[in-house]
Amino acid sequence: MAQKIPTRLYLAEDEMPKNWYNLRADMKDKPDPILHPGTLAPATAADLEPVFCKETVKQELDQTTRLIPIPEGLQQFYKAYRPSALIRAYFLEKELGTPAEIYYKFEGTNTSGSHKLNSAAAQAYYAKEEGLTTLTTETGAGQWGSAMAMACAFYGLKLIVYMVKVSSQQKPYRKALIETYGARLIPSPSDTTESGCAILAANPQTGGSLGCAISEAIETAVKTGQCRYVLGSVLNHVLLHQSIIGQEVKATFEKYNIKPDIIIGCAGGGSNLGGLIAPFMGEKLSGASQTRFIAVEPASCPSFTRGRFAYDFGDTAKTTPLLRMYTLGSGFIPSANHAGGLRYHGMNSTLSKLYHDGHLEARSALQTDVFDAAVRFAKLEGILPAPESSHAILAAIDEALECKRTGEKKTILFGLTGTGYFDMTAYMAYNEKTMTDHVPSDEELEKGFASIPDIPQNKKPLP
Amino acid sequence: MAQKIPTRLYLAEDEMPKNWYNLRADMKDKPDPILHPGTLAPATAADLEPVFCKETVKQELDQTTRLIPIPEGLQQFYKAYRPSALIRAYFLEKELGTPAEIYYKFEGTNTSGSHKLNSAAAQAYYAKEEGLTTLTTETGAGQWGSAMAMACAFYGLKLIVYMVKVSSQQKPYRKALIETYGARLIPSPSDTTESGCAILAANPQTGGSLGCAISEAIETAVKTGQCRYVLGSVLNHVLLHQSIIGQEVKATFEKYNIKPDIIIGCAGGGSNLGGLIAPFMGEKLSGASQTRFIAVEPASCPSFTRGRFAYDFGDTAKTTPLLRMYTLGSGFIPSANHAGGLRYHGMNSTLSKLYHDGHLEARSALQTDVFDAAVRFAKLEGILPAPESSHAILAAIDEALECKRTGEKKTILFGLTGTGYFDMTAYMAYNEKTMTDHVPSDEELEKGFASIPDIPQNKKPLP
Repeated sequence: MAQKIPTRLYLAEDEMPKNWYNLRADMKDKPDPILHPGTLAPATAADLEPVFCKETVKQELDQTTRLIPIPEGLQQFYKAYRPSALIRAYFLEKELGTPAEIYYKFEGTNTSGSHKLNSAAAQAYYAKEEGLTTLTTETGAGQWGSAMAMACAFYGLKLIVYMVKVSSQQKPYRKALIETYGARLIPSPSDTTESGCAILAANPQTGGSLGCAISEAIETAVKTGQCRYVLGSVLNHVLLHQSIIGQEVKATFEKYNIKPDIIIGCAGGGSNLGGLIAPFMGEKLSGASQTRFIAVEPASCPSFTRGRFAYDFGDTAKTTPLLRMYTLGSGFIPSANHAGGLRYHGMNSTLSKLYHDGHLEARSALQTDVFDAAVRFAKLEGILPAPESSHAILAAIDEALECKRTGEKKTILFGLTGTGYFDMTAYMAYNEKTMTDHVPSDEELEKGFASIPDIPQNKKPLP
Repeated sequence: MAQKIPTRLYLAEDEMPKNWYNLRADMKDKPDPILHPGTLAPATAADLEPVFCKETVKQELDQTTRLIPIPEGLQQFYKAYRPSALIRAYFLEKELGTPAEIYYKFEGTNTSGSHKLNSAAAQAYYAKEEGLTTLTTETGAGQWGSAMAMACAFYGLKLIVYMVKVSSQQKPYRKALIETYGARLIPSPSDTTESGCAILAANPQTGGSLGCAISEAIETAVKTGQCRYVLGSVLNHVLLHQSIIGQEVKATFEKYNIKPDIIIGCAGGGSNLGGLIAPFMGEKLSGASQTRFIAVEPASCPSFTRGRFAYDFGDTAKTTPLLRMYTLGSGFIPSANHAGGLRYHGMNSTLSKLYHDGHLEARSALQTDVFDAAVRFAKLEGILPAPESSHAILAAIDEALECKRTGEKKTILFGLTGTGYFDMTAYMAYNEKTMTDHVPSDEELEKGFASIPDIPQNKKPLP
């Protein structure tokens, strides 16, 4: 008789992965290089080190080392909240009446409420090792700001968080959480930076945006001594740190002899999706599996499904290096009725390359459908999911129902990136049926595309 | 070489306890019986069954069965979020420089944010089995209401939650969470019950109290068909369900050959404390161990340390049976500046008996000291604790520092009952240094004591 799969599948502490997995090493067709915005030449470590920690710059540029050791001191930190649970969704399967087996990797039990802590801890660890005293960052929905505040409290670093102003007003408890961990929180745009002042001068009533907060955080990092900037998604070193998620799933699946047919992740900047799928995508690229990978993004911020594959800036003030990615343009701001994260204009360059080359599927979802799935899941599986994570839940339910139609017994894995405990305003809107959807018109998208830089690389035919 | 203890100690799913442990069976000196408030005779099952589910009444009155099987269907539910983690506080130990080993059992990873789900699930399970369609309950800080809402959503039961009015206003997100799981939430006092109307008539501006919400919930249960009332603490069947906590710790400690010297729990009505210590107290009563047990309560609601050991009502309207317990009087209401739970006027009768007989220690704590400990813990161990749980953290730190002074290498266990994610208003007050303490004067306590019934049993010399 086959081994009964428990509801919660854990690795023992000594089975935890000791290396991150660098997917780019196994890609024959590498993602396009980061470009210096002035020279348009590939960015070097020297270009990036004034902004980022040295070790993360090294990781960002490393396209060849497959396994990168997780430092021993960081492993200790990880053990405080990892390995995270891999859960068999028995109750959801039963309710759906599907022959599919559904698993989810739950990253929401740490206090930041999401997977973001995996990279926050790594970046704070390296900053401490490199003798820095201060870090700056931005946060939108607040998961990343919370994670960085926790990591900096632990490693004894000062942290300045530029929080999108409208978010800091809508989420006073996220703000309080970040401040409880000792970080200095500044609603963005602010008068503490030139880029903030310029944005305020142009539009005094603005509620801010992620791209604007990034501009402020980078500016402050560069002009402050012993200080660097940290980012919670989009960049390849962040995806590298998040590969701990996929590495843990892979080790757990091997322990129980489970092979996934479909892996689903929500997609904003790509950190969770990239981390979850990394080792499985590596297998697929090598020809060892036929796993399908599905990215799910909000219909209100559809960078994969309606964006352009082009070199673009990471921030509104156009101060960052250029990344080739699926982008809506750094001037794109999602509709005000969009709840939760997944609101960044671009997508990680590695995931963009994989999508462009046909290795990854993408779909978009309306937030009312996403919250339907979220509440259904909460009542069955007992976890109130983050709005972000619920995009993956919706797609997992859809795939499981497809299995019901076809009778196929597929194994579906999705990433449950976090919890919705700081998103209750959105749940209240859902409960009170005042939540609405917004799908940007082609005209609205064109306005965003107009902010994509007009440079030679963007005119080249796609390789 | 001794086995290295991991940071997080887990039981495998098949090592989970299959029985609750009924401590009363191993007490030579039993807790005093519940009395019928009219006849003052010991209450019978027939007296209690109009209010509570049959099976829980049976458990409430059972003083002799040591192990009570956890129903198979309920075990399935438990597996969705249990076994909970037992965590070695390596980072806290290091910071304190103590020779003590500190462990905490963390019950906060489920969405209700606390241990309350253990009994909520059990009570909903029995209600469903007994063919009921509706349950009523009350909630103060909101953990219990959230837990019942989750359990009723899972088992397909209707739930009416009377939430202390001032709490429902101060904690809109708790309210939203309860409603997201489909429960009907009524701020108490309300005009839906006679007891609510009477309280409103006497004091239209009242923010309500737990005792008042209990009166409303019981009244509604009794007058509604196929409906019973459920309570989240104080009663012995609740402590029985919570013994899953202690049973898991005991199994885990045995697996790693760990013996606790001191066990610490916060104490409101006693559900977590009673559940955590149960099997270890049983060992102590049998003479097999010398473990110390410490209850920690708020100085603003000091039922153990300043209350009277007397028969008292469980609710403000004096409709419940009488329980012999340490009580401040059912008319006692904690100061408005008290944050979080642990605000009930009385204490579980079994714990009261153990305290009275000298088997259990108790101490009280100022909330500013409690929040100092909470934030210190959060920064080191990465979990933002509930205000309630932080009482236990404070005492664990104090005991660990005492070990540092004496050089003793003791093993300390405390219950980390939950997370503070819905308590950010209190953390904001702490961060902004507007949090204050209130220790009731003797005169204030006398006003509460005046509400304790004047009955023969309360005049008997203590046995």
